[in-house]
Amino acid sequence: MAEARAAAVQAPAADVAGLEIYELLRELYPICRSISGDGVRQTFELLAPLLPLKTTEVPTGTAVFDWQVPREWNIRDAWIADADGNRVVDFQASNLHVLGYSVPVRRTLPLQELRKHLFTHPTEPDWIPFRTSYYNENWGFCLTQRQLDGMAEGDYEVCIDSTLSDGSITYAEAVFPGELDDEVLITTYSCHPSLANDNSSGIALVAMLGKYLAGSSLRYTYRLLFSPGSIGPISWLAANEERLGRIKHGLVASCVGDPGRPTYKRSRGGDAEIDRAVELVLRDRGDHEIRPFTPLGGDERQFCSPGIDLPVGALSRTPANEFHGYHSSADNLELVQPDALGDSFELYLAVIDVLERNRRYENLNPKGEPQLGKRGLYRAIAGGTSEEEALLWVLNLSDGEHDLIEISDRSGLPFSAIRDAADALERVDLLRAL
Amino acid sequence: MAEARAAAVQAPAADVAGLEIYELLRELYPICRSISGDGVRQTFELLAPLLPLKTTEVPTGTAVFDWQVPREWNIRDAWIADADGNRVVDFQASNLHVLGYSVPVRRTLPLQELRKHLFTHPTEPDWIPFRTSYYNENWGFCLTQRQLDGMAEGDYEVCIDSTLSDGSITYAEAVFPGELDDEVLITTYSCHPSLANDNSSGIALVAMLGKYLAGSSLRYTYRLLFSPGSIGPISWLAANEERLGRIKHGLVASCVGDPGRPTYKRSRGGDAEIDRAVELVLRDRGDHEIRPFTPLGGDERQFCSPGIDLPVGALSRTPANEFHGYHSSADNLELVQPDALGDSFELYLAVIDVLERNRRYENLNPKGEPQLGKRGLYRAIAGGTSEEEALLWVLNLSDGEHDLIEISDRSGLPFSAIRDAADALERVDLLRAL
Amino acid sequence: MAEARAAAVQAPAADVAGLEIYELLRELYPICRSISGDGVRQTFELLAPLLPLKTTEVPTGTAVFDWQVPREWNIRDAWIADADGNRVVDFQASNLHVLGYSVPVRRTLPLQELRKHLFTHPTEPDWIPFRTSYYNENWGFCLTQRQLDGMAEGDYEVCIDSTLSDGSITYAEAVFPGELDDEVLITTYSCHPSLANDNSSGIALVAMLGKYLAGSSLRYTYRLLFSPGSIGPISWLAANEERLGRIKHGLVASCVGDPGRPTYKRSRGGDAEIDRAVELVLRDRGDHEIRPFTPLGGDERQFCSPGIDLPVGALSRTPANEFHGYHSSADNLELVQPDALGDSFELYLAVIDVLERNRRYENLNPKGEPQLGKRGLYRAIAGGTSEEEALLWVLNLSDGEHDLIEISDRSGLPFSAIRDAADALERVDLLRAL
Repeated sequence: MAEARAAAVQAPAADVAGLEIYELLRELYPICRSISGDGVRQTFELLAPLLPLKTTEVPTGTAVFDWQVPREWNIRDAWIADADGNRVVDFQASNLHVLGYSVPVRRTLPLQELRKHLFTHPTEPDWIPFRTSYYNENWGFCLTQRQLDGMAEGDYEVCIDSTLSDGSITYAEAVFPGELDDEVLITTYSCHPSLANDNSSGIALVAMLGKYLAGSSLRYTYRLLFSPGSIGPISWLAANEERLGRIKHGLVASCVGDPGRPTYKRSRGGDAEIDRAVELVLRDRGDHEIRPFTPLGGDERQFCSPGIDLPVGALSRTPANEFHGYHSSADNLELVQPDALGDSFELYLAVIDVLERNRRYENLNPKGEPQLGKRGLYRAIAGGTSEEEALLWVLNLSDGEHDLIEISDRSGLPFSAIRDAADALERVDLLRAL
Repeated sequence: MAEARAAAVQAPAADVAGLEIYELLRELYPICRSISGDGVRQTFELLAPLLPLKTTEVPTGTAVFDWQVPREWNIRDAWIADADGNRVVDFQASNLHVLGYSVPVRRTLPLQELRKHLFTHPTEPDWIPFRTSYYNENWGFCLTQRQLDGMAEGDYEVCIDSTLSDGSITYAEAVFPGELDDEVLITTYSCHPSLANDNSSGIALVAMLGKYLAGSSLRYTYRLLFSPGSIGPISWLAANEERLGRIKHGLVASCVGDPGRPTYKRSRGGDAEIDRAVELVLRDRGDHEIRPFTPLGGDERQFCSPGIDLPVGALSRTPANEFHGYHSSADNLELVQPDALGDSFELYLAVIDVLERNRRYENLNPKGEPQLGKRGLYRAIAGGTSEEEALLWVLNLSDGEHDLIEISDRSGLPFSAIRDAADALERVDLLRAL
Repeated sequence: MAEARAAAVQAPAADVAGLEIYELLRELYPICRSISGDGVRQTFELLAPLLPLKTTEVPTGTAVFDWQVPREWNIRDAWIADADGNRVVDFQASNLHVLGYSVPVRRTLPLQELRKHLFTHPTEPDWIPFRTSYYNENWGFCLTQRQLDGMAEGDYEVCIDSTLSDGSITYAEAVFPGELDDEVLITTYSCHPSLANDNSSGIALVAMLGKYLAGSSLRYTYRLLFSPGSIGPISWLAANEERLGRIKHGLVASCVGDPGRPTYKRSRGGDAEIDRAVELVLRDRGDHEIRPFTPLGGDERQFCSPGIDLPVGALSRTPANEFHGYHSSADNLELVQPDALGDSFELYLAVIDVLERNRRYENLNPKGEPQLGKRGLYRAIAGGTSEEEALLWVLNLSDGEHDLIEISDRSGLPFSAIRDAADALERVDLLRAL
């Protein structure tokens, strides 16, 4: 006979958790990350005290499906100086100023020639855009339109003190074993420099999930994965191909810190249990948006490629590309909000709770309604409450065909009410978990 | 070759039938019914002249699925008298004044103590509420808030002259054999005292259906069941478990006399033939409401429990719990209307007609359209009528996959037009019933 | 490795094609057609220079499914003359003036008696209605209400110089062989006299499709069929019954010249590939209407009879019966518009293009996204274009389960973009046609 169980993972309230995540995000934000390099390693070192993190280095040149792991990029400094030696653009002021994966350069050239290496955001003259060139050798600077407008014609000295050479890319995992070998995968990308929502927020939130999963008694095994966008999941999938069958549910965490409403993008199949779980949680929590799967977007592109096809959705607030400030210096510590981070954290915990507690049951007294009164589960004088409604819904649909998510969905009652009703019925031997 | 057939059951027009049902309801209304006792037996005696009624007594203590048949309750009188001997609450004025299944009591006690045995309707000060306590031993009085407000502090003598002792519960059935052993079950509850819509109306309407089924040539066998709510269907189901497979379609009749629009609550499966039949009839008849199945409500809770799972829907006007006056003295002979009863009666007959006449046919000339003109089924000069449309719809969809309900549904034509077209085509050997 | 291919059929632009079709329609319009007779043969002779037309004569009395081929009707002249010999109704002025299939008559009779042989359009006093009596022997005249109102009482001489005698009905086909024996059938009716939209427009458009199919390299074999309404398709189906399995997709062309928006009526099944193809083309082209299948309408009634059940839809502009002027002299050369004809022509070509190019593919690098950049299919600097979106959609859904129509539908991208993406991916060996 089962004991009544509260939420699967014990964690602080949303406001407290939000502040804790925000503090971590503030530490992560200044680091210059890319798809490889020491900024990524520094990031993982910063997370290590919170969760049992295991890092993996994948050497340059390793074949991973259709790709090869690229060379490792590291950067120490970069600037543009005018004829007087004034640094008009300076990597020390913002790590967004350098085009990601810029090859080293040190030369003097006229502005006219330099222009083709300069990137601005024409309609937002105070924003530094974020640009990269991972797979085409190039160098360049990103600067505000206002900075560019202030640059007189003439010669400029440019310096990018970077290295692009054999090394590795780095990803990190934390695994929290549960009763089952079946896994829930929560994954986020770790390749962006000083961008707060996209995706310091995701790194901080997933790390904090790890902190609280550590102390919990779990049915599923949970795997948290931090890896560089695209090449990271591809490398991880290639290395773990024979074990992918264990992943029963997955979420890509990104852009979880802006004040927009939660948005869920369904998995490739569109009706996986993870889709049903997230949609139910969002229904119970208020304003939100559900979107169909598309092969555009973030790392779900890899997890949902046709030869992999894992049930992985993407749970964010305002999706990348759509929030004001995306891929620019305006995606900063003012854009992300502790409240939003806390709300996202609660949302992830609620999804975990549904996954942990969802199952099919068998009504052990299926002919007519069982007499709830003699078991202390019914009102004395006729009236009717939503607790009783939950009991009747669970009894009626517990024929092995419907799981608790569906019962909650059809009844309109919160998942927690349905879950508690199932617990109560199991305690009086009216229900048996299948 | 089939003969053209009109409606399956010959009955008076709605206005005449409505008055006839109302007259019966007026006789049923004053009787003090409960889930057991002589009021129920008196009710069945009153119906007996109308239809071939067979009553069954199920003794106290009989195990029926998860339940035991309770003791039998009978009541002769009940009152509250003030210190001067004035009866301030009197069962003789309304049988709602006593809490259903009150154990016998005769004592004097101060108002303060008495209060916990008094039930009123605080927001409707002139209504006597209807309350029961079948499965928890208790006693009490229901009275208007105004009555209670008029009771001075002080001692009151209370008397409930009831018996609660071994006996039986009583249900009644009438069976109308048809060509087939397959049955249509129409069931209603017989356990409410002086409440008119809930459910004297259902008893009167189902009895009147029986009166006219008696004279009809039927395809299905019809079974009408009158039984106390919950324990009645449970007892009947337990006694008839091995024969339940014969029930192909069923309806719970309740609250069929108020002036609200018809409401249909689907069976557990949601797409049984009874659901499709009722929804088609309602579509053809105008304003109405369709609701999904829920495990809350009336006796459909038992017929649609997961271990029974019969295709039984609930066809009412304004559902119990939602009409003004529900479970109170305001559910009286002014609330129910002959017109509404007549309309409900016609609705039930129309559903019976659809069930009787619905079937799949085979188009015997399926290649191209048959030449209707040479069979006298087509206009001389081009034009087009809805009779011809019905012929073409029936011919096109009579491939063994579609029944007449679906053809009526897809064509938008009334079921009667589709049924008549099938008859006409069968007469000229263009169609064969499957 | 496949070559990139443009549209399947090379044809002039819509405006040029529209004028070409209109010119042909102007030649077809004056001919007095019926379900048999020399007007039909004259029509096919007029089309013969455009496409490889093969005509078939089906003799009077031939049994075709449930029908017999009727006698052949020809008419030379018809008139009503008043007492002074003035021809008040004259077939030479409009071939609509005679009731189609009128038997010969020559007699004098008072207006009162004549009236039952006169047909007008009471609410449109200047329109001559179009009426026929193919399968009931009769004679009559159609005239404007104004003409009838001008006829004084008294005797009139009537003459219908027609013959109704053994002969044949005539239909014509043109076949354009493709790589596959599988056929696309495009069919139209050829039995209407001087009506422009219904259906000189269909005859002209289908003939023009033939002119341009002739020069094209095709995957499917295309069959164009011109035949008298109802009896034509029935005769053709009866003669070709054993070969109907070859017809994979079909369209009935009618009323393609009025300025209304395109309307598509689905095939009997409702979700055949032809339905999906037409609906996708209409989605990409703007305002339109989709309707469910009904067994009412034109020749789709025969192709979609239950014993034939071919995937044949009806693609028109405003459907017959619904445009202003239907079955009257107001359906004339002013109603139909070159622009509308050109637009309809393009629409048919677009549907053909989808059918020619639609297929399922297999992604040959299904694990993770393939690296498009190294194959020249990806932008250098991050940004994103709809061409890349099309590549990602095709890659993701090319698992053998989804065809290009579905990929276009789900992505919201035009079919042409999806088709071109599939071509591009096939060229770099990332995709294989199944």
